[in-house]
Amino acid sequence: MKLYVVGLGPGELSQATGRALQALEECDVIAGYTVYIDLIKERFGHKKLLSTPMKKEVERCRLAVEETLKGQKVAMVCSGDAGVYGMAGLIYEVAQDYDPIEIEIIPGITAACSGAAVLGAPLIHDFAVISLSDLLTPWEQIEKRLECAAMADFVMCLYNPSSKKRHDYLQKACDLVLKYKNGETVCGIVKNIGREGEEATVLTLSQLRETQVDMFSTVYIGNSTTREIRGSMVTSRGYRLGANNG
Amino acid sequence: MKLYVVGLGPGELSQATGRALQALEECDVIAGYTVYIDLIKERFGHKKLLSTPMKKEVERCRLAVEETLKGQKVAMVCSGDAGVYGMAGLIYEVAQDYDPIEIEIIPGITAACSGAAVLGAPLIHDFAVISLSDLLTPWEQIEKRLECAAMADFVMCLYNPSSKKRHDYLQKACDLVLKYKNGETVCGIVKNIGREGEEATVLTLSQLRETQVDMFSTVYIGNSTTREIRGSMVTSRGYRLGANNG
Repeated sequence: MKLYVVGLGPGELSQATGRALQALEECDVIAGYTVYIDLIKERFGHKKLLSTPMKKEVERCRLAVEETLKGQKVAMVCSGDAGVYGMAGLIYEVAQDYDPIEIEIIPGITAACSGAAVLGAPLIHDFAVISLSDLLTPWEQIEKRLECAAMADFVMCLYNPSSKKRHDYLQKACDLVLKYKNGETVCGIVKNIGREGEEATVLTLSQLRETQVDMFSTVYIGNSTTREIRGSMVTSRGYRLGANNG
Repeated sequence: MKLYVVGLGPGELSQATGRALQALEECDVIAGYTVYIDLIKERFGHKKLLSTPMKKEVERCRLAVEETLKGQKVAMVCSGDAGVYGMAGLIYEVAQDYDPIEIEIIPGITAACSGAAVLGAPLIHDFAVISLSDLLTPWEQIEKRLECAAMADFVMCLYNPSSKKRHDYLQKACDLVLKYKNGETVCGIVKNIGREGEEATVLTLSQLRETQVDMFSTVYIGNSTTREIRGSMVTSRGYRLGANNG
């Protein structure tokens, strides 16, 4: 009785690892949010597919655990990496209420990494990943994390930078960051990573503050060494070119 | 003229994405650190392979850019994600000195994500990635990042936690973190991710302080909600089970 929690990476299945596809191949049942089930349907439509709508996360996890306990090999699929703001944690929490099952997490490319690749190389040095969603986290805690990350000159990657109800959160975040980082700090936005309409923008922190982003965007704020190089956002790893590294 | 910078993920090629393997398939030349070239040799040995030893990073990048300018399709391979402490940034920096070429970064699973999957789900909420290597970063800056990340209750993922010359750096890091986090904070160590001898340990922050890790390990320090659940390290995403989420 094994439950895989599988990250599919961004967009197309070509962005999943061989190991992730192998796990789906082995399974009897695949569970997930409707949109991800649609993504794998063409290739894995012959399996038992259990899709549940957004916001029914706990229910989805219970379904997957219960199917596993029936003796099925089950995979729960997520986009990106199931371990970064994904379902992996909730599966462990829910599974506690049942007899022990074997859980295996299969990582995927999270948006921080796939978006960084579109922009250039913003995450080459120490970075902090912060979600601006206050659905499950008090806004005060988000503020503290933004300030501390800015203070320590981390590169910052912001998930969930906007939604209908939170159209000014990115602006608020920029204002906090601007207390510590220069307005000329190089920033980036990537929209629809790995999907149709993929779009990358490199801009300054002052410009980012004035920009409206949507919920399909991931936002990057550079550190003090981040530069724009021929249109790409690139953070220095600290090598001194021409010194004794080459 | 195109230069791919390809992250292979941890260990075996089954941990690379389809897109990464497709890029290697398309290339005439594959460049990289000797160990990674060995990894792809069996499958891609019919290509022109350029391997250079460790610490020759700038030279390796110049080689790759120069091959590309000769009209070859070139891939530079890295383990993990080329965009996280990897070669992607240096490629952009080096390529500046030459005529423009097209650079495409293909992301891979970075150790933060692959190690997290082995431990359970430690990175489910906001996290900071910090390298303890002071080869290219002043130790004072590393200290500041450790303190700020601890202060804001980030989950922390530490790369390069040890080396021959830096056997006490993890202990120093723990002492800084212990100024803000409880000694009972749940932590994890993963050794040899995705390779033979893969090994995960869940322990407390006080125990981590007394533990000697090697350079093939990645270290995780939980936030205040991180728990050990049936031997796995799991951070809460903030869902209240039984509330109106299920």
